Amino acid sequence: MCGIVGIVDAGGVSFQLYYALYALQHRGQESAGLSTFDGKTLYKHKGQGLVAEVFDEEILCSLKGSVGVGHVRYPTTGAKIPENVQPFNFRYAGRHLAIIHNGNLVNTPALRQEYEQRGQIFCTTTDTEVIANIIADELRVSNSMEDAVLLCMRRLQGSYSVVIMLNDTLYAFRDPMGIKPLCIGKTEQGYVVASESVAVDALGGTFVRDIRPGELVTLNESGFSSTQIAVASHTAHCIFEYVYFARADSVMDGILVYDVRQSIGQKLYESDRLKPDIVCPVPDSGTAYAAGYAVRSGCPFLEGLMKNRYMGRTFIMPTQRQREQAVRIKLNPIRGNLKDRKVVLVDDSIVRGTTSRRIVEMIREAGADEVHVRVGSPPIIAPCYLGVDMPTRTELIASGKEEEAVRDSIAATSLTYISLEDLVEAIGIDASNLCTGCLTGHYPVEIPGEKSCRRAVTYVDGTYQSNLKRFGTEQETS
Amino acid sequence: MCGIVGIVDAGGVSFQLYYALYALQHRGQESAGLSTFDGKTLYKHKGQGLVAEVFDEEILCSLKGSVGVGHVRYPTTGAKIPENVQPFNFRYAGRHLAIIHNGNLVNTPALRQEYEQRGQIFCTTTDTEVIANIIADELRVSNSMEDAVLLCMRRLQGSYSVVIMLNDTLYAFRDPMGIKPLCIGKTEQGYVVASESVAVDALGGTFVRDIRPGELVTLNESGFSSTQIAVASHTAHCIFEYVYFARADSVMDGILVYDVRQSIGQKLYESDRLKPDIVCPVPDSGTAYAAGYAVRSGCPFLEGLMKNRYMGRTFIMPTQRQREQAVRIKLNPIRGNLKDRKVVLVDDSIVRGTTSRRIVEMIREAGADEVHVRVGSPPIIAPCYLGVDMPTRTELIASGKEEEAVRDSIAATSLTYISLEDLVEAIGIDASNLCTGCLTGHYPVEIPGEKSCRRAVTYVDGTYQSNLKRFGTEQETS
Amino acid sequence: MCGIVGIVDAGGVSFQLYYALYALQHRGQESAGLSTFDGKTLYKHKGQGLVAEVFDEEILCSLKGSVGVGHVRYPTTGAKIPENVQPFNFRYAGRHLAIIHNGNLVNTPALRQEYEQRGQIFCTTTDTEVIANIIADELRVSNSMEDAVLLCMRRLQGSYSVVIMLNDTLYAFRDPMGIKPLCIGKTEQGYVVASESVAVDALGGTFVRDIRPGELVTLNESGFSSTQIAVASHTAHCIFEYVYFARADSVMDGILVYDVRQSIGQKLYESDRLKPDIVCPVPDSGTAYAAGYAVRSGCPFLEGLMKNRYMGRTFIMPTQRQREQAVRIKLNPIRGNLKDRKVVLVDDSIVRGTTSRRIVEMIREAGADEVHVRVGSPPIIAPCYLGVDMPTRTELIASGKEEEAVRDSIAATSLTYISLEDLVEAIGIDASNLCTGCLTGHYPVEIPGEKSCRRAVTYVDGTYQSNLKRFGTEQETS
Amino acid sequence: MCGIVGIVDAGGVSFQLYYALYALQHRGQESAGLSTFDGKTLYKHKGQGLVAEVFDEEILCSLKGSVGVGHVRYPTTGAKIPENVQPFNFRYAGRHLAIIHNGNLVNTPALRQEYEQRGQIFCTTTDTEVIANIIADELRVSNSMEDAVLLCMRRLQGSYSVVIMLNDTLYAFRDPMGIKPLCIGKTEQGYVVASESVAVDALGGTFVRDIRPGELVTLNESGFSSTQIAVASHTAHCIFEYVYFARADSVMDGILVYDVRQSIGQKLYESDRLKPDIVCPVPDSGTAYAAGYAVRSGCPFLEGLMKNRYMGRTFIMPTQRQREQAVRIKLNPIRGNLKDRKVVLVDDSIVRGTTSRRIVEMIREAGADEVHVRVGSPPIIAPCYLGVDMPTRTELIASGKEEEAVRDSIAATSLTYISLEDLVEAIGIDASNLCTGCLTGHYPVEIPGEKSCRRAVTYVDGTYQSNLKRFGTEQETS
Repeated sequence: MCGIVGIVDAGGVSFQLYYALYALQHRGQESAGLSTFDGKTLYKHKGQGLVAEVFDEEILCSLKGSVGVGHVRYPTTGAKIPENVQPFNFRYAGRHLAIIHNGNLVNTPALRQEYEQRGQIFCTTTDTEVIANIIADELRVSNSMEDAVLLCMRRLQGSYSVVIMLNDTLYAFRDPMGIKPLCIGKTEQGYVVASESVAVDALGGTFVRDIRPGELVTLNESGFSSTQIAVASHTAHCIFEYVYFARADSVMDGILVYDVRQSIGQKLYESDRLKPDIVCPVPDSGTAYAAGYAVRSGCPFLEGLMKNRYMGRTFIMPTQRQREQAVRIKLNPIRGNLKDRKVVLVDDSIVRGTTSRRIVEMIREAGADEVHVRVGSPPIIAPCYLGVDMPTRTELIASGKEEEAVRDSIAATSLTYISLEDLVEAIGIDASNLCTGCLTGHYPVEIPGEKSCRRAVTYVDGTYQSNLKRFGTEQETS
Repeated sequence: MCGIVGIVDAGGVSFQLYYALYALQHRGQESAGLSTFDGKTLYKHKGQGLVAEVFDEEILCSLKGSVGVGHVRYPTTGAKIPENVQPFNFRYAGRHLAIIHNGNLVNTPALRQEYEQRGQIFCTTTDTEVIANIIADELRVSNSMEDAVLLCMRRLQGSYSVVIMLNDTLYAFRDPMGIKPLCIGKTEQGYVVASESVAVDALGGTFVRDIRPGELVTLNESGFSSTQIAVASHTAHCIFEYVYFARADSVMDGILVYDVRQSIGQKLYESDRLKPDIVCPVPDSGTAYAAGYAVRSGCPFLEGLMKNRYMGRTFIMPTQRQREQAVRIKLNPIRGNLKDRKVVLVDDSIVRGTTSRRIVEMIREAGADEVHVRVGSPPIIAPCYLGVDMPTRTELIASGKEEEAVRDSIAATSLTYISLEDLVEAIGIDASNLCTGCLTGHYPVEIPGEKSCRRAVTYVDGTYQSNLKRFGTEQETS
Repeated sequence: MCGIVGIVDAGGVSFQLYYALYALQHRGQESAGLSTFDGKTLYKHKGQGLVAEVFDEEILCSLKGSVGVGHVRYPTTGAKIPENVQPFNFRYAGRHLAIIHNGNLVNTPALRQEYEQRGQIFCTTTDTEVIANIIADELRVSNSMEDAVLLCMRRLQGSYSVVIMLNDTLYAFRDPMGIKPLCIGKTEQGYVVASESVAVDALGGTFVRDIRPGELVTLNESGFSSTQIAVASHTAHCIFEYVYFARADSVMDGILVYDVRQSIGQKLYESDRLKPDIVCPVPDSGTAYAAGYAVRSGCPFLEGLMKNRYMGRTFIMPTQRQREQAVRIKLNPIRGNLKDRKVVLVDDSIVRGTTSRRIVEMIREAGADEVHVRVGSPPIIAPCYLGVDMPTRTELIASGKEEEAVRDSIAATSLTYISLEDLVEAIGIDASNLCTGCLTGHYPVEIPGEKSCRRAVTYVDGTYQSNLKRFGTEQETS
Repeated sequence: MCGIVGIVDAGGVSFQLYYALYALQHRGQESAGLSTFDGKTLYKHKGQGLVAEVFDEEILCSLKGSVGVGHVRYPTTGAKIPENVQPFNFRYAGRHLAIIHNGNLVNTPALRQEYEQRGQIFCTTTDTEVIANIIADELRVSNSMEDAVLLCMRRLQGSYSVVIMLNDTLYAFRDPMGIKPLCIGKTEQGYVVASESVAVDALGGTFVRDIRPGELVTLNESGFSSTQIAVASHTAHCIFEYVYFARADSVMDGILVYDVRQSIGQKLYESDRLKPDIVCPVPDSGTAYAAGYAVRSGCPFLEGLMKNRYMGRTFIMPTQRQREQAVRIKLNPIRGNLKDRKVVLVDDSIVRGTTSRRIVEMIREAGADEVHVRVGSPPIIAPCYLGVDMPTRTELIASGKEEEAVRDSIAATSLTYISLEDLVEAIGIDASNLCTGCLTGHYPVEIPGEKSCRRAVTYVDGTYQSNLKRFGTEQETS
């Protein structure tokens, strides 16, 4: 996963980009980068680490200009090497470009090979450089960014929310299925596009709307315009954004994430109406779920685990031998709240199960009588190919294992997952418009060896000369 | 405030000290330091910053030995300079000593002057070096650590929890009034003394007991022994530890801090029985209070503010001009939970009032109908001289101002503080055994210009030859 | 200027590359970079600063493989930005390539534009990326490195000594006029190519020979082979390498640089046979010249200026106000050797004249009676377009100024430059085979607005299919 | 060895101290430190590394005030730990003091023990803190710096040039035998004291005079005054300063060091009148010697070895296995100047002999016919206890070995050392006024197990009340 932001604002953008990236920090902690343009020069700075570690005041002051893009990265493709830190900056025909990308392409190798056969060399191993090549390839012929984005949408397979800075204009688009989020906001003297609405909030801006799947939005200081480049029969919004990835205070495709999570918590209670002594969240991810469970059940919300807030990137984890101790350093049970109690423990998801096992054990050691685990997502049974860093099937505890076996493995008194139906209802988007690949094993794009439920995409005609001819005009259908 | 820890453990101490300090990180983020001793050499490392920033694996591996002390610092006395980072290490008569200290002395200038008149030079501006001088002064004559600690207790005015490493033995003591906490735990192959029990938890150790006010505990790998050096008529445990400073999951002088805070939350409801649509904590400090209010009132606990978790030490805050924006970068309102709601907002304390004002404003802007502020401590009206970094009276919003004026200043619909009586009841320790200086302006030690309710201290006789004669044997009384 | 090195050695190359770059450090102090290949993976590390600052033992150990290239940079083209630090690494058709380049191209803009019109994007602003594109462009069609180098030689205008690592083979070539140096050496278990023979010495290797102008040398662990790709009617070896740039202990195109400089010193004496009390070098560059003058004149060589050896990259120079003091911090006059003496002061060259003026003044202040300045190069009157960082004509003290005016400007008692004829004789290479652009204003390549004495180049025929057709087969002549 | 400097100048001192320390960098590269005082506050900064690495412009700007002291350190006593970096700063009776010290005490352990028995604790393991204690001890009683320095001179055994900053006054003194140098200069708006005159030169100042052995000089902005505290029967100036340690352009106790070295070179020729083809220095230390030999013999001075100038502190030396290569990386033979030549190789001294052996071998490999080694100091046969970091007797190649055996060991054609008589004559100071401990094994202070030629010291009477009584008034004689 990654977080992206683009800002065009007459008052200067580097500090605003910094605060926006900071609001998106949960989407990627591995590296951060900014590029800005002041009408003449492209300024840039990138580095490994958190936003607050990569940038300082001197650097931000040196990043001049009233337009810029920024990126925080959680690596999915491309090795962890400095060149791969976004934005990807390049010059083309005297113009300065910077590209940022959230998502994951599944046909990168084929596209790279094709471009290499035409003599193109590659400086990085990222998807972003492939997108840059497609853009430059089309601009060369038609000099139209709309055509260039249409070419992208025809050629790229996978998830992609992209922002391109071309001199002093920003171009933002989402793939036709809208797998990854992207929204528009209004700042004091300009506009912002960002992965989540919390970035708009952080700037004191006003949320305008989500960018539509398949839409290209062109922004400059005075306003923005929209072109619908492609239309898919169904969208495929990532269901995991609602459950886990997005911040609870984000509004995404019209829905407040906190509402979804609280509603899931309520449905978790409704499924078997278990009334515990306390409803205890796994901090911090389980809090909204637990609040929902507590409200609906009328049972008290009470913290049973205290999280240490100071774990920096350089924190030394205990070695293998002391692995048992690792969870204890992050989480400490509050014995007084747990002892002799019947506890409902609420978490957002169970991936490998190792952490859950240790937490349940810790709560039992603190004296709890019963530990009932309630999970805000259905069992995760398949990998993600579209941008979420999931382990392989063999590492997923729920893959090919009965619920009772999972319960036994984590030593819980009882274990209940939310059902897919309840989850879909909590989100309020029809299942056919969500990507549920990790929960069902059916993906909205074709993945070799996996089942597909690919959407039909209709490309909106333009004045598309040029390269488009090469790839034909036939309508792509699944 | 500071956090201190001493460990003697046959299995090596540097990594254990690291994890213990990490558990105490909330007590001081300015600097951290460790000293260890391996029977021959004293090893040490100190630095500005968080524990995870100051130490890395190579450094910890170089800190050899089965005994050591560590410190995290939040400066109260002594400028922010490298020399002042504890532990204070020195050699005396061929022996290696390291001293760590949590608290604040009020008679440091007089003591420094006295020692300077005897030719002593001072390398730092800390209280700790003064304590080191008293210790060395007595060891020189009697070579007895018990006498040296007795001399400390006779001479030092103020709060002090101290751990001394003298070659391979640890000595730990608390001032006769037990103003600052200090407790003992059992590790796998030894013992630990630490400011809070959470440090014992982090090591997977077993909590043994608090060190008693005026008690000296001597620890080595095989066990510990106790000597009661002094007895005060009343203790003076810092009330602010329970309300604000200690971690909620700590047990301090026999009391689980979370219990105190949750109980305060309940009492806050009971005082006027206001039933809101939601009970919303100011994260993270208000959570236990809000949970208590919600349980007692039967109203739903729901987060109305989301806190950004990634604010590192080097984070660039918005400038003065954008100060309004500063709170927004740390906290984001969850509009969906606040709009058209009657909100009870629960926080632990109000100091200057500026943050409260901005939070209330933010919640109103998010659409809340009413914002009722409930505060877990009584009004703070006086400074602290005993180790908590409080602002001056003029900066304290509640100092010399009616409650209604404070409410008006923060623009809350209503404002209620917990009463001192209710707070004392929630803690469960008699008011005469607590230090309530910041809430009442009466202090347990004499402070020029302030009112005192000083305790009588009886010193337990030993074989006290030496220096003690110099200071007489009269019993000190108030 | 830059220094380049490539090594293929069965015993591993990263430490050898490090020592070789260190021996070439005088050719560039701005940044350094290494790339190695271990049969599977390309490893790389680059950074701003000296070789000893950019690399440490851990980094070198991580740069695995028995083939690699390295570069030290003194920027001539391309801004001082991280991306521009060489080697330039890229992937092409599944192969790993790294390119390093010493020299300067004069037709880069035209070449970039041409490639951009074909859809190519550029990640850096360096000449090296242009060379990489030409190489990839040809490999795509013919898959022959010989053809690719031929294409380079046909298309590139300017100076270029290049080493390419393509998987586990090294390719090294010099431009047809041999403007910049490049030589081959034998290491213990392989081969090295480097800008100067001192890099071979540093490895304890054996100097083999210079690479010939227009020659391509292919190296692997077992040996090297040669192909003459192009032949020019005359060479154009950079005359400034002998006078200033190369290390005195290097052998370049068959000539020991120290010999040239000492011989110049002798000829400087012969020109007017002035016998001083002492012959004093400007350290360190003037030493060989002064030794030659002293030997030939029979007058004593004696240091009159002591140079401080500890001036690091971060040294703070005195501000404008104290500029007079700047030279004094680097050089200190030895009064005892100068007082009441008739001094011949020998330096290699005078560029702007500011340093010379301050040195002469300093020597006079130390009590010298007469200061006769003798210069090892003729007046520099024109800029360099081929890789030496020279100031513009207006900054060159000798440009458009009589010798007497220069002497007056630096306040010397007398001033004598070596004549171009004497310099050429000292080098021992015919003037028609040297580039004397900076001394005569006539350049061996066409520069808009400058006079040219361009050489005819004949390209040696191969099996050249492919791109070569596009550029025709006509012989390029001036 | 160490370099020390103190400056009092109305125009501010931090940048001047920086340039002065830079001029003294050859006296210590391990660490550097500065303390300044602005009438109210003592500012300080210290660090490991070269002056240019430890300080930057921001730091220097923060070191305010018109008085200050600085130090570069090459450790002789005290472990390589941060606390031990000088200046040693402390507060005493409300006054700010900073002490810097060049030299080595031989009675530190006894003095430490004595002070510890009086209750004093020690923060560092340096001689400097011992001196600080003596100073504070006397100031306490008499409040007279003259008395305090007298107490130092009575109590300290060894070499010590000391500068003390006490608030805005500087106090500088040398031990009664003047073992280590210290001189006074005039700056634009004040005064400077420094280890060598080159520090005065670097500031554009005027050299005033050396501080006399046993003299105390008190400096402030308006001038300086002198008190002779003690007089020794003979001085004991360190002979190694002239041969090796001091910069050649320094004037020390009235003598230009370059003159001494050049004169030694002449005497080396005179001893056996060997006429080689070339006189070649070992760079850089042998240059002045070689220049002298060349002048006197009429044989040409010519460099045979080129030194690499870029070896930073972090340079990675080849491992044990490649040790043979280590010298080659620092020094490269200039074959053209050596081949078939009869070479006189001149160096300042031979300590362990390992480097000499490798250099001779290198010159032979480069084709020299004969390699005659000439050495600017007599054989070093004994350790130094007074501040020069010398190896033990077993490591000294000349200790207990005939000259012929040394020649054989380094494989030279011939080997000649300067005789002690010639060396003393070259310096121009009577042997009885020099410390020749390392050359003769006779030391000017009593060292257990070594022969002594201790000087009688007469202390000049003052109004010496106080402590002096404790130590008696008897005259110390040998």
